[in-house]
Amino acid sequence: VLAYLNGQYQPRSGATISVEDRGFVFGDGVYEVWRIVNGTLFETERHLARLASGLNELRIPAPDIVHPDVLNSVAKRLVAESGLLDGEATLYLEVTRGVAPRTHQFPSKPTNPTVYATVNRFSPPEELRAKGAACITIPDLRWLRCDIKTIQLLPNVLAKQAAVERGALDAIMIRDGVATEGSHANVFAVIDGVLRTHPTNHLILAGITRAVVLELAANAGIRAVEEPVTEAELASADELFLAGTTTDVMPIVRLNDAVIASGQPGPITTRLVREFRVCLDVACGVVSTTT
Amino acid sequence: VLAYLNGQYQPRSGATISVEDRGFVFGDGVYEVWRIVNGTLFETERHLARLASGLNELRIPAPDIVHPDVLNSVAKRLVAESGLLDGEATLYLEVTRGVAPRTHQFPSKPTNPTVYATVNRFSPPEELRAKGAACITIPDLRWLRCDIKTIQLLPNVLAKQAAVERGALDAIMIRDGVATEGSHANVFAVIDGVLRTHPTNHLILAGITRAVVLELAANAGIRAVEEPVTEAELASADELFLAGTTTDVMPIVRLNDAVIASGQPGPITTRLVREFRVCLDVACGVVSTTT
Repeated sequence: VLAYLNGQYQPRSGATISVEDRGFVFGDGVYEVWRIVNGTLFETERHLARLASGLNELRIPAPDIVHPDVLNSVAKRLVAESGLLDGEATLYLEVTRGVAPRTHQFPSKPTNPTVYATVNRFSPPEELRAKGAACITIPDLRWLRCDIKTIQLLPNVLAKQAAVERGALDAIMIRDGVATEGSHANVFAVIDGVLRTHPTNHLILAGITRAVVLELAANAGIRAVEEPVTEAELASADELFLAGTTTDVMPIVRLNDAVIASGQPGPITTRLVREFRVCLDVACGVVSTTT
Repeated sequence: VLAYLNGQYQPRSGATISVEDRGFVFGDGVYEVWRIVNGTLFETERHLARLASGLNELRIPAPDIVHPDVLNSVAKRLVAESGLLDGEATLYLEVTRGVAPRTHQFPSKPTNPTVYATVNRFSPPEELRAKGAACITIPDLRWLRCDIKTIQLLPNVLAKQAAVERGALDAIMIRDGVATEGSHANVFAVIDGVLRTHPTNHLILAGITRAVVLELAANAGIRAVEEPVTEAELASADELFLAGTTTDVMPIVRLNDAVIASGQPGPITTRLVREFRVCLDVACGVVSTTT
């Protein structure tokens, strides 16, 4: 598998950064993950806009790769030379403030941001999706700028690990009694026929898949509101699902070992799974048999 | 300057880690910084105990360097070959979960933790200390496990940068109306003759310098309590200071551009500055002229 690092292409296994990279000593950076189908990135511009916004919040100068032409050209070469032109894949892109002597404040001399990108084979979790996944709930311990997609991911790591150890797919984080999000996906509930998800503010990441799902729901005539779902409402919801780039739209049928509703993926979730697949295939230029 | 990386010594400028190191992609690691005088580490064991505790919280297997003999031997070589045997220096040690394909949960195969250590010349800030420093206050945005000394330091970076841009030494973080700590130091106030600092819980790091200062205060007959200081109390305190490994004991005489008390380092702070210096010199085997 190939990696792109500061303008150079090389096998990922040999790609290295300085021990003084601020990503390594401070977690001082941001990242994005794109879904790729047959070599085409999904939602190039929306991910790039979020990346640019995060860089701006951190006051890291935007590198060239924030331009869609540059990103697409880097992605094309990574995908092609990693043998991922056919089928599904993901692109990971991380930008840190760069290499400098360790001081908490920004470096006194301007640094070149570190730009690292790589690709991976992606297999949509069809089997799990058909039956639905299990989740646990866990306290949301994260910082108060979850709207920035930074590499400050240790609480997410610990939440996901706790889920895996309980045989679940993911952990739904609870802050002040309401569901914020999963370890790397947004959470949706269907309650009394209405789709509900946490509003975008500093407590959640404004997921791209979340935004697409809300658009698909609107087009399908499904009523949706951006309002918090309490922990009690999660447990008694008619349907639950996660939405994220690598999570896709994933029905949740068990929560903390209790069954959600019928224990099967519900009709609105199932419809959104289908709509999302069509949307992805159309956007990536795949001739879809389901349209 | 020399670096130690996974058992190897090399110039720091050429020391590199994999782009797949979990420190670089998740901030999945912990660190410590020691003060060194004439080649001797200050408070070796207390820092190591905190490191071991953090590794345990993150369930990263403790590497050999957590043993004081190994740490001292690594430190000795770094100090000697970096020309830092005489005078003051600091030792930085970082341990991450190691290198693995990127997944939020812990790697499926056991990884070797990444161990990185290096040294730097340290110049105690005597000039600033004599007149006292300025601080600002800033909302505490950090996660809810500040008791673990992780490399999740972006909020600390942003707080320190905000302080520097306002001509201040550091930012005192405020959560729920009380002072938690600085960007990399604990905060103390003297109010009505009593030394006060935030209790050790999940909202602050239990600083080693903080612990030493509390011991020195007890020995000097200064009454001290571990109770939160409100933002209003900060502004009206008789004395304020920061305490940390590289901050040392640092009087604060201005807060958000307002003068604290007389605008001069107060008597209790000044006494603790002196006691701390003696403690450091005695512990590091320096013949001190102030004892």
